[in-house]
Amino acid sequence: MTILSSLKVRFLSFLFITVISLSAQEHPKLILTKTGVEKIKKQLGKVPLMDQAIASVKAEVDAAINKPINLPIPKDYSGGYSHETHKLNYRLMQKAGVLYQILEDDAYAIYVRDMLKAYAGLYPTLPVHPKERSYARGKLFWQCLNDSNWLVYTSQAYDCIYEYLSKKERKYIENQLFRPFADFISVENPQFFNRVHNHSTWGNVAVGMIALVMEDEQLLQRALYGIKDVSLTKGLKDDDGGFILEPGKKAGFFANLDEPFSPDGYYTEGPYYQRYAMYPFLIFAQALQNVKPELKIFDYKDGLLIKSVYALLQLSDMDGDFFPINDGQKGMSYYSGSLVNAVDIAYYYGSKDPELLAIAEKQNTVVLNDAGLAVAQDITQDKATPFVKRSVDLKDGPNGEQGGIAVLRQDGLEVVFKYTAQGLSHGHYDKLSFSLYENGEEVIQDYGLARFVNIEQKGGGNYLKENTTWAKQTIAHNTLVQDGTSHFNGMYEVGSKNHSNHYLFNIDDLAAQVISATEQNAYPGTHMHRTMVMLKDSSWQKPMVLDVMEVKSDSTHTYELPFYYMGQLLTLNQPYKANVQLKPLGTENGYQHLFKEAASPVAEENVKFSWLANKKFYTLTTLASAADSIVLARVGANDPNFNLRRDPALILKKNNVADAFFVSVLESHGSYSTVSELAVNATTSVKQITVLYRDQDYWAIKLELKEGEDKIVAFSSKNVNRNTKHKLNVKGSVISWQGPFAIINLK
Amino acid sequence: MTILSSLKVRFLSFLFITVISLSAQEHPKLILTKTGVEKIKKQLGKVPLMDQAIASVKAEVDAAINKPINLPIPKDYSGGYSHETHKLNYRLMQKAGVLYQILEDDAYAIYVRDMLKAYAGLYPTLPVHPKERSYARGKLFWQCLNDSNWLVYTSQAYDCIYEYLSKKERKYIENQLFRPFADFISVENPQFFNRVHNHSTWGNVAVGMIALVMEDEQLLQRALYGIKDVSLTKGLKDDDGGFILEPGKKAGFFANLDEPFSPDGYYTEGPYYQRYAMYPFLIFAQALQNVKPELKIFDYKDGLLIKSVYALLQLSDMDGDFFPINDGQKGMSYYSGSLVNAVDIAYYYGSKDPELLAIAEKQNTVVLNDAGLAVAQDITQDKATPFVKRSVDLKDGPNGEQGGIAVLRQDGLEVVFKYTAQGLSHGHYDKLSFSLYENGEEVIQDYGLARFVNIEQKGGGNYLKENTTWAKQTIAHNTLVQDGTSHFNGMYEVGSKNHSNHYLFNIDDLAAQVISATEQNAYPGTHMHRTMVMLKDSSWQKPMVLDVMEVKSDSTHTYELPFYYMGQLLTLNQPYKANVQLKPLGTENGYQHLFKEAASPVAEENVKFSWLANKKFYTLTTLASAADSIVLARVGANDPNFNLRRDPALILKKNNVADAFFVSVLESHGSYSTVSELAVNATTSVKQITVLYRDQDYWAIKLELKEGEDKIVAFSSKNVNRNTKHKLNVKGSVISWQGPFAIINLK
Repeated sequence: MTILSSLKVRFLSFLFITVISLSAQEHPKLILTKTGVEKIKKQLGKVPLMDQAIASVKAEVDAAINKPINLPIPKDYSGGYSHETHKLNYRLMQKAGVLYQILEDDAYAIYVRDMLKAYAGLYPTLPVHPKERSYARGKLFWQCLNDSNWLVYTSQAYDCIYEYLSKKERKYIENQLFRPFADFISVENPQFFNRVHNHSTWGNVAVGMIALVMEDEQLLQRALYGIKDVSLTKGLKDDDGGFILEPGKKAGFFANLDEPFSPDGYYTEGPYYQRYAMYPFLIFAQALQNVKPELKIFDYKDGLLIKSVYALLQLSDMDGDFFPINDGQKGMSYYSGSLVNAVDIAYYYGSKDPELLAIAEKQNTVVLNDAGLAVAQDITQDKATPFVKRSVDLKDGPNGEQGGIAVLRQDGLEVVFKYTAQGLSHGHYDKLSFSLYENGEEVIQDYGLARFVNIEQKGGGNYLKENTTWAKQTIAHNTLVQDGTSHFNGMYEVGSKNHSNHYLFNIDDLAAQVISATEQNAYPGTHMHRTMVMLKDSSWQKPMVLDVMEVKSDSTHTYELPFYYMGQLLTLNQPYKANVQLKPLGTENGYQHLFKEAASPVAEENVKFSWLANKKFYTLTTLASAADSIVLARVGANDPNFNLRRDPALILKKNNVADAFFVSVLESHGSYSTVSELAVNATTSVKQITVLYRDQDYWAIKLELKEGEDKIVAFSSKNVNRNTKHKLNVKGSVISWQGPFAIINLK
Repeated sequence: MTILSSLKVRFLSFLFITVISLSAQEHPKLILTKTGVEKIKKQLGKVPLMDQAIASVKAEVDAAINKPINLPIPKDYSGGYSHETHKLNYRLMQKAGVLYQILEDDAYAIYVRDMLKAYAGLYPTLPVHPKERSYARGKLFWQCLNDSNWLVYTSQAYDCIYEYLSKKERKYIENQLFRPFADFISVENPQFFNRVHNHSTWGNVAVGMIALVMEDEQLLQRALYGIKDVSLTKGLKDDDGGFILEPGKKAGFFANLDEPFSPDGYYTEGPYYQRYAMYPFLIFAQALQNVKPELKIFDYKDGLLIKSVYALLQLSDMDGDFFPINDGQKGMSYYSGSLVNAVDIAYYYGSKDPELLAIAEKQNTVVLNDAGLAVAQDITQDKATPFVKRSVDLKDGPNGEQGGIAVLRQDGLEVVFKYTAQGLSHGHYDKLSFSLYENGEEVIQDYGLARFVNIEQKGGGNYLKENTTWAKQTIAHNTLVQDGTSHFNGMYEVGSKNHSNHYLFNIDDLAAQVISATEQNAYPGTHMHRTMVMLKDSSWQKPMVLDVMEVKSDSTHTYELPFYYMGQLLTLNQPYKANVQLKPLGTENGYQHLFKEAASPVAEENVKFSWLANKKFYTLTTLASAADSIVLARVGANDPNFNLRRDPALILKKNNVADAFFVSVLESHGSYSTVSELAVNATTSVKQITVLYRDQDYWAIKLELKEGEDKIVAFSSKNVNRNTKHKLNVKGSVISWQGPFAIINLK
């Protein structure tokens, strides 16, 4: 070697090193940023919530870091050993990466590096996952979905230790692991990647995150706009019965942002899946904001992403649990890690709304990045103000024209009224259904899903067949069933093309909040119009809920309206007879899963049904006639593996009618203490409800109370104009009012 | 009139006034005392807990005092209007009396005075209560029991305003109200007053309290020792089927203290009724201590009354709820007002135990008297130390020789093992039954009673017929049923003459706590011996419970052993088949109330049954053979008014055998979060249990685990001598140990 050539080599080495260090300066840049890390370091020891969050992550990672790295051969479903281990691994890597940045302890970087190398060694040897149930099997996990989860987290870890790795290490890891991984979940599984679905969102974001770290523009385009020119078999469906989109339709991150979100920020699958989807949506948005600020992702569609966080928070009960409509598992709440991330991001990239700090305070932790730091600091500075849950009406559909979901709130009572579109493959057939909560406890429940998520003993933690045969069926919900069939005959192809229609949402007067919607496609030829009014009166202990379901059909049918009350029956003012032997209520459409516990003809015009739940007394007063009947039912028939909860229902039944008018008042009226053994206000204060008037255009209901003023609720079913004046002749007297409805107090 | 005679009259008047004022100086003296009131007044504003308690009572009384006094004509059962109003009245009077003393505001005295006068006007006009259900109907209430409650409280109110009243007022009230009232519940209802029963305790104390206030020695003797020379029809029973004692037997307060309490302070009816009885026992003891200190009531029988408070506290779960054995309503706890009184009294008149302060802190209130003041002051001075719930074995019976009840405790798990006497008329037929708790939640439940106390809609708030047909029956409990019949054939006459026998209680080693007892009278000719061992090992996540039931009979029988697990079945390693139609399991002895949900032959030697409850995983592993079978059952059949909860059970069944050996391991082994959706330790760690040895005198069980050391539990069934050495030949090897049992770890 000559001196020159030796110099040249040195010079080149020098240059090479410079290039690396230039490039290295840019990392971390994805979620943590160089400047963000500096800010956090400066605040160490000064911001309790941040210090706690760091300490908690550190304790978790420190406990793991001394154990051998464990990469089991993929074998199990969710809940199983290999599944849970790989899941734990990506979470630990992401956390260790962050700790390396904040605490500057190489041990964390080494941990991530070694694990990444181990994965880079393992991954190329892996066949597709042995479990065959998924329409898109992964390699580490049984579904590409979980593989995508892995990559979303691992990309962040990789970004954090990027500088720590040699170029050779990076090349090895990228070529052996990340690029084939990203290709596998995208071009090798277009039926997974090129859809509008929360699964695909995870796939898109996984590819997008690693693209940003690796600065791979081609991969980034794939993430944002989908795979070009894919040919997929038409009519293909996923495991849940959802459609796999046809070629030519939009795909990628933006498509997933455009379609399932309404302008109000409601995600069409419902809050349980919105919570799940929020993490990839927001984490990728944060990454784009950091790496591609020119995209102004948080301004996209009038700030859609931030709005969606608010929508989600409003769709939780007083304990923070999401309303479990569609395939929602009960107990999922805004304490979920993905909501910690969402709240921190919405605060930092939104309007620094101090109400969000109140949620973060309850969550009692923050994410370890700029957003989390801002939240923690502002909480320390006592900027939090209470988060007010308001009555809301959130539209569904990309343009907000596919129905919606409303929550009426007052004094601890919450009515959830669902008149959405189908909700993709996770939707239930329950147009115009409702549920009722008090102080975060279910009073009239929505059953939720039939699944034990990640509990391997129950069907591998996956959807159980009872999810289809029971949980999705109409009779499993608090809404109208015609002739024992489900809405749209339970056909996803039909349901997914239809939605209910908004009629009225009015909360001008908090003492008379109204939500009203119609449905005409669930049962062709039958028009349903349900109106729920949350009424309050200063002389009442609590608000009451008036529930009016108008049904008009061009032929006669049997109509059933179930109420899935929680708790135990106290009284029913009808001559009911409990069966000594229990038989299923029917053979299909969910009826096969209900035991008939008792039946009752109707002897009184007002059926009064009282029950005790959560140490509170409730009464349902409902209008009925001698032609009607009542069934007391219980979930759990034809359930060979005890997959269903043995929950009760009261079903009102009207036989052989074309039109039906269901009018009910739901009342929470007292409490019981097992300690003092005092029963307070144990009986209903409703004396009677009567229909004063009903025709095609109007109804008027009189609500007589045992004490205090009676009320008339008058409603215009066809005209919501606020200025229209209405007049009704009611048994000799005249009621007149302006606007779609009126509450008239009778002195 | 001469001057002399005029002087004489004046002198006499003077004397007379002096006598009155001397007597007046003595009031209040019953519960509040003159000196106690002075002490409280001096501390006003200085002791937060006392101030809070006063403020709370004041708020309640002030709200009531401005409303008209309301004395409805007696008409209703518990929970009904007249009942609840009179109940509220006596509570208000008692509180107003105290406030008058402490706050010196005449308004409170006037309120009590006026109400007493109103009662004095009403009472003589009252016939016996119109509801006819009780064996001892009251006048204000449907039972003399409630009338007695009234007098116990009202006596205190009267004592507090005694000085405020004129002599004439006192005479009027005593003659019109108190004396006839005391006579009515005693001499006019000897079948109520002259018994050993919690009802009679209330009656005795009511009469005793008013006797002390009125200084009526004759009444006091009646209270303490019963009515002399009463003739009652032999064999008379009360509403609950309990015996009314025959003439000649001891009666009165001391008899009620002697008989139902064991020397350990256990009250034979169980903690729910002990809680109820504690108030009259202790309030009267406090009154006697104040008025008749020479009786040294708190030293009586080695400090029995104070011991009983500790016994009661130990019979509560980690939330403070009493274990609901016998006719106990779930949810009753040491937060009950009667326990506030009990804890304050046990502290003040006992050893000033700082652990009691910890309970008082949780109760967050004190009673307004000397005892409450001492508690509040010492809490303010930070004297409280944690109340430690220990494993305990409390003997039953006046001499502690009628069985008992034990609680084994460790790491949040609590096994309640019942081997008591019958428990008077509130006892259930469940010799050697058990229940299991974790962190205050039921895992294997005791059903408790079938009653909605004070909820009028359910049978007037009284015992429901299902209490007899279901809740008391043996099959409703976690213990052995022979040939489908209840213990003692469900005959109170027989059950009340018998009790189980203590065999062994050993907690020397907290890692191997043992309770063991025998029963030979429940099924004549059949000997039952149940042993429960709470095992702990440092390599286990939580303790396990070994449950061994030895059954030996002189003839063949069908044996059933139910486990009333709470929650939802996850897996059962047997080929079970769920029934499409549900039929009752039987026609009598409680079986008529169980639906047969599924049945299973036994295919494996170890039946493994896992369930999910309260977000925790549990497994029951039990030894079985192909001759055995399993039934999955659910409560609720033949329950026309929906009085029963739809709770599940697993029933192990051995057919046509004389001897049976039930060996089970109960295991809490993991948790599930609906927020993180992580299932941790979701499967059992028990590999297998096998019987190594069994004969008349010994058994040895091997417990094999999936990981960690296996264990052998060896037990001597006939000899509890600590020094005896035992040797067993077990499949070629020899096990030897000293004392009644041994835990051997297999390396």
